[in-house]
Amino acid sequence: MGVPLLETKIRSASKEVVIGGNHRFCLIGERINPTGRRIFQEQLRAGDLSAIERDVKAQVEAGADVLDVNMGVPLTDEAELLAKAVTMIQELTDLPLCIDSSVVEALEAGLSAYKGRALVNSITAEDERMEQILPLVKKYDAAVIALPNDVDEIPMDPEKRLLLVDKIVEVATKEYGMAIEDIVIDPLAMPIGADQETAVNTMTTMRGIRDKYGMNMTCGASNVSFGMPGRHGLNGTFLAMAMTAGLTSAIMDARTEEVISSVKAADLLLGHDEWGMAWISRHRAAQAAQAAVAT
Amino acid sequence: MGVPLLETKIRSASKEVVIGGNHRFCLIGERINPTGRRIFQEQLRAGDLSAIERDVKAQVEAGADVLDVNMGVPLTDEAELLAKAVTMIQELTDLPLCIDSSVVEALEAGLSAYKGRALVNSITAEDERMEQILPLVKKYDAAVIALPNDVDEIPMDPEKRLLLVDKIVEVATKEYGMAIEDIVIDPLAMPIGADQETAVNTMTTMRGIRDKYGMNMTCGASNVSFGMPGRHGLNGTFLAMAMTAGLTSAIMDARTEEVISSVKAADLLLGHDEWGMAWISRHRAAQAAQAAVAT
Repeated sequence: MGVPLLETKIRSASKEVVIGGNHRFCLIGERINPTGRRIFQEQLRAGDLSAIERDVKAQVEAGADVLDVNMGVPLTDEAELLAKAVTMIQELTDLPLCIDSSVVEALEAGLSAYKGRALVNSITAEDERMEQILPLVKKYDAAVIALPNDVDEIPMDPEKRLLLVDKIVEVATKEYGMAIEDIVIDPLAMPIGADQETAVNTMTTMRGIRDKYGMNMTCGASNVSFGMPGRHGLNGTFLAMAMTAGLTSAIMDARTEEVISSVKAADLLLGHDEWGMAWISRHRAAQAAQAAVAT
Repeated sequence: MGVPLLETKIRSASKEVVIGGNHRFCLIGERINPTGRRIFQEQLRAGDLSAIERDVKAQVEAGADVLDVNMGVPLTDEAELLAKAVTMIQELTDLPLCIDSSVVEALEAGLSAYKGRALVNSITAEDERMEQILPLVKKYDAAVIALPNDVDEIPMDPEKRLLLVDKIVEVATKEYGMAIEDIVIDPLAMPIGADQETAVNTMTTMRGIRDKYGMNMTCGASNVSFGMPGRHGLNGTFLAMAMTAGLTSAIMDARTEEVISSVKAADLLLGHDEWGMAWISRHRAAQAAQAAVAT
């Protein structure tokens, strides 16, 4: 195994979440995101953030550990929306947030509104992206998700992805003074329907990153099943397999029982659920819910 | 990855099944076994083998690749029963069989009745067991499942299990002239409820065996969840995780949809289901079955 497994600590005003290979898997709820949600987009465009309340509640109840917040709606002031959303969500829950934007000004507005130690989503290995965002991450004492892709390509070859991880680590730690444990790599899970070898390559990349650096990793759990039927089953199985290769968190729909069940089973099997207490209580809750429906 | 991945070939009179790390996972149906089935035991004691017909049909329909046959009922002539069962099953299906007994005479009777190239379940690293069974395996040109446990213990430490695998390989190939690809290791999955580290240790053992020898492996899929609720979910997740460590088959209840679904998802993710054809057709069949129920 080589190097020790690192811990990434993020916080709200009152709650800390530790991401790490010796901890249970960190579920980052992806729901607060207008992409593909037309009604939500229209509401946000009209300055109506009320739908967020329901999304927060559903994800908290489902057991999310962190909530991703993305306010990327075309033709709006994303910075203003994101700052408002962050403030509002922090009044609704004590879960730490992952502040998610491709717009640098929006990230800054979100970070400045945030109370605690956020996770920033995301940088790539592109110099310009690192130059724009890493000073912000550093200024607000946040952690950051980094994708090993470059200006021209998302390399499929694990060796090439590892070289881009090397570059990210080198630049972020040496030029921007980041601690390596505050960089969470997203090794890019691609659709299995487009390339049969992609999941194996992603897991090889993960093993390489874990064994060389012990860094934490996350991924978009649902990418891998894009275009396939039975998506939840595929996503859940992928996460459990990837957890054996070093994946320690995922950005996912925290409301999908089938996916979470795989993750919780993998937590238990990896020795991160003492006496199976979480697994057993989860099962009891499901039984109680079924019994309530039946009566 | 080191060494090439070996192929274990077993056959009925007309059908070959290849177990191997570059093939889809091999499902060995465990159902034809009187252990824990009181009515079936009584029937077998009375010489009534008719229940086997239903067990064969259910497992074939569920997609088993190989059927395990165990006739271990106390106070019966197990050798005679096993030979009869083997003959009967080979009239019902062309799936290859795994001939399963702790009684040497029963294994011999089963092997002599069998048409094709069987899998024998099982030897251990104990000298006496190897001495009794390996000459039979060789005589009938079969393959064999081998458990890395010794007279005194089932070692929990992966290093110790690997030493016992070394011993099995050494003795079976050098003293009995077996081909290494005809030895399938069962690295002993133990209940996670009794020992939190057991699944990790078993997967470490698997990785060690794959990387050193490229040998095929099997396990009793349901052991790991013994004493826990939500067993199918745990078993399926365990198999998918273990497949990333080199597990290439399992002795399992081939009728449990939830477990098979995980295995089939893992086949796809490991690149062993070209274009996802098996995954997609499985999903369509499930939808058709649901539609049939709904009308």
